[in-house]
Amino acid sequence: MTKKILKFGGTSVGSIERIRHAAKIVQKEFNDGNSLIVVVSAMAGRTNDLLKKSYEISQNFDKKELDILLSSGEMETIALMTGALNNLGIKAKSWLSWQIPILTQGEPTNSRIINIGTEKINEYLKKGGVAVVPGFQGVSETFNLKTIGRGGSDATAVAIAKIFNMDCCEIYTDVDGVFSTDPNKIPVAKKIDKISYEEMLELSSLGAKVMQPSAVQTAMMYKIPLHVKSTFSEREGTRIFSEENIDYSKVVTGVAYSKDEAKITLQGVEDKPGVAAEIFEPLSKNQINIDMVIQNVSSDGKKTDLTFTIKRNDLSKSLEIIKKNKKINYMSLSHNEKVSKISAVGAGMITTPGVTYEMFRALAEEKINILAISTSEIKISLIIDESNTVRAIKKLHKSFKLD
Amino acid sequence: MTKKILKFGGTSVGSIERIRHAAKIVQKEFNDGNSLIVVVSAMAGRTNDLLKKSYEISQNFDKKELDILLSSGEMETIALMTGALNNLGIKAKSWLSWQIPILTQGEPTNSRIINIGTEKINEYLKKGGVAVVPGFQGVSETFNLKTIGRGGSDATAVAIAKIFNMDCCEIYTDVDGVFSTDPNKIPVAKKIDKISYEEMLELSSLGAKVMQPSAVQTAMMYKIPLHVKSTFSEREGTRIFSEENIDYSKVVTGVAYSKDEAKITLQGVEDKPGVAAEIFEPLSKNQINIDMVIQNVSSDGKKTDLTFTIKRNDLSKSLEIIKKNKKINYMSLSHNEKVSKISAVGAGMITTPGVTYEMFRALAEEKINILAISTSEIKISLIIDESNTVRAIKKLHKSFKLD
Repeated sequence: MTKKILKFGGTSVGSIERIRHAAKIVQKEFNDGNSLIVVVSAMAGRTNDLLKKSYEISQNFDKKELDILLSSGEMETIALMTGALNNLGIKAKSWLSWQIPILTQGEPTNSRIINIGTEKINEYLKKGGVAVVPGFQGVSETFNLKTIGRGGSDATAVAIAKIFNMDCCEIYTDVDGVFSTDPNKIPVAKKIDKISYEEMLELSSLGAKVMQPSAVQTAMMYKIPLHVKSTFSEREGTRIFSEENIDYSKVVTGVAYSKDEAKITLQGVEDKPGVAAEIFEPLSKNQINIDMVIQNVSSDGKKTDLTFTIKRNDLSKSLEIIKKNKKINYMSLSHNEKVSKISAVGAGMITTPGVTYEMFRALAEEKINILAISTSEIKISLIIDESNTVRAIKKLHKSFKLD
Repeated sequence: MTKKILKFGGTSVGSIERIRHAAKIVQKEFNDGNSLIVVVSAMAGRTNDLLKKSYEISQNFDKKELDILLSSGEMETIALMTGALNNLGIKAKSWLSWQIPILTQGEPTNSRIINIGTEKINEYLKKGGVAVVPGFQGVSETFNLKTIGRGGSDATAVAIAKIFNMDCCEIYTDVDGVFSTDPNKIPVAKKIDKISYEEMLELSSLGAKVMQPSAVQTAMMYKIPLHVKSTFSEREGTRIFSEENIDYSKVVTGVAYSKDEAKITLQGVEDKPGVAAEIFEPLSKNQINIDMVIQNVSSDGKKTDLTFTIKRNDLSKSLEIIKKNKKINYMSLSHNEKVSKISAVGAGMITTPGVTYEMFRALAEEKINILAISTSEIKISLIIDESNTVRAIKKLHKSFKLD
């Protein structure tokens, strides 16, 4: 008997027909003799609908009340899913987050799961029932409803897998799995069969929307095997697990990109300790997220150039803050708001030298200029002109033999 | 300081605009220095939408899960209402039924409120806050969500009024109050300013959909003054209280009717004890509700005629059951599926003789034949041919000086 989490995202429970279909997937797993906890998101569109309503009432809607409002979305789906399972003759029961309880800590709309009661659900599983649980929510220690941020149903699924010591966690979604790059833009994109947590983490942070990064991180910490698959096809999906289980025949696993980037360069900044901190402090205080930071070694040891990237819609605010900042001296301030970030991710990079060179050579062949570079152990990110995005991805996808 | 319940029905919170409008009514009451508990229904259409979804999954949807599904409707409105109040600068907080708790007993989808926790909300009221509470729901003693039947938000409002010892309970709805008859059909219908619980009970049982009968009954038992008024106008509405507060200048307060009736007559039934029971037992076991029952005194002491009315859509099933019933003997079985029930209600009837005669005379003038009659202390109900309904109501409305 395998103990499994089956998690269905919003599109997988987006209509009554789809809920019935998802229930049949649960039925198959149940008939295979598995012990199951089902985690569901709100029906596709419902969370946005509720958010819109709150926004129409006030652009500053009370966040505690927003937690209650949004929690109603998954309450609808747990009941419908359980009803659909009952209708298939399967013993099933839904559990509200406060009944389990799923304990959370932190701010309204942005809490995190700190513990989950196991007694009642384990008893029910032992009796051969399927437990259906809402994603995305929990209760504080004073039993107020809290949500854990958009995409939080993945985090719920992984946290339950961890605390209930489940054998694996299956994430049902509307795509066949994790792809080597965006299949909507680059038709040669291929589904990845196996990927390490670290690679998945880089890819999901870089915009592959298949799984929420913090859920991947939790799965990695507790070595919970994940299996991302489509609700709507019989394909195998993508298995996510520890590096040691993966055969690195390919150096690069995937190529991700994000288009809504902007680049700011401060030329002729004083090259002395504490300058970067003085530049970034007021930006971070204004909730502006700095992504890549590149600082050249100064030729004369006195002045240097500092380049960093931010989300495009933070650009004008960032420039304003820098201009107002009296603590820093620089020669000139320039920016480019039409850039994109291309990242090659692969755990094989660690042991294979020359990946960076390979990437530069490939883009040089396409005459694509690289505006900034940042590398980590399993990732190389480049900033290029936005107009070159698709061409660059296609070239890299081919060069790294992902086609 | 007056302690008030303000209850808003589905149409009163049917859109964001309407929720904002309802919040302004609360604001006015709050600024008048009243201590307030606000009870809300689900947004108009939402409960039906959820029911439809459950029905699409299974016509035999699990009732425990249905309770969870339907409870999500009011969860949405308490959060939106509270957000709207906060937005007007009013200190407000929503409470889920299990947080209060609103304790219920009984079957899923048909429980009743047996107790309500007062400590937390009273503390909050003392601090000057407005408590916002979901109608229609509660939790069992084992803390499973339960609903209390359609229209149950009225029952919630009255139960809270009783247990919190509130001074009055205001029911905001989409009509100006209780009318002397259906204003959509009979334009001369007049709004009733004051009505006794007993009269209201008869009228609401008879199809005046303004208030749920069991809520009126609870209010009557505990003498909680009710005030039914429109969310959308400034008119005074209808006050419902004990008879002693009412001046009975009019004998009849209102004329109600219901069109979906059918009549069955068994002629030549043996006139001996237990016969009626044998006729009705199999009907009631099949959930068929018997309304009026009329049995004539038999002329010879041996045979009698028995007439009774039922809902029209129970007719064919009822006839089938009677035909199958081997325990009863009768000469002939007849039915009329095109009848309607007209009822005149008025606490003044108790002290005013001749109301029945007045009613018969009025209908005779209109040449309307009376098919069956049933009377109680404050009500006279007649069965007539359906085609005469509007003409009969107009005539009675005029005869009893309600125009």
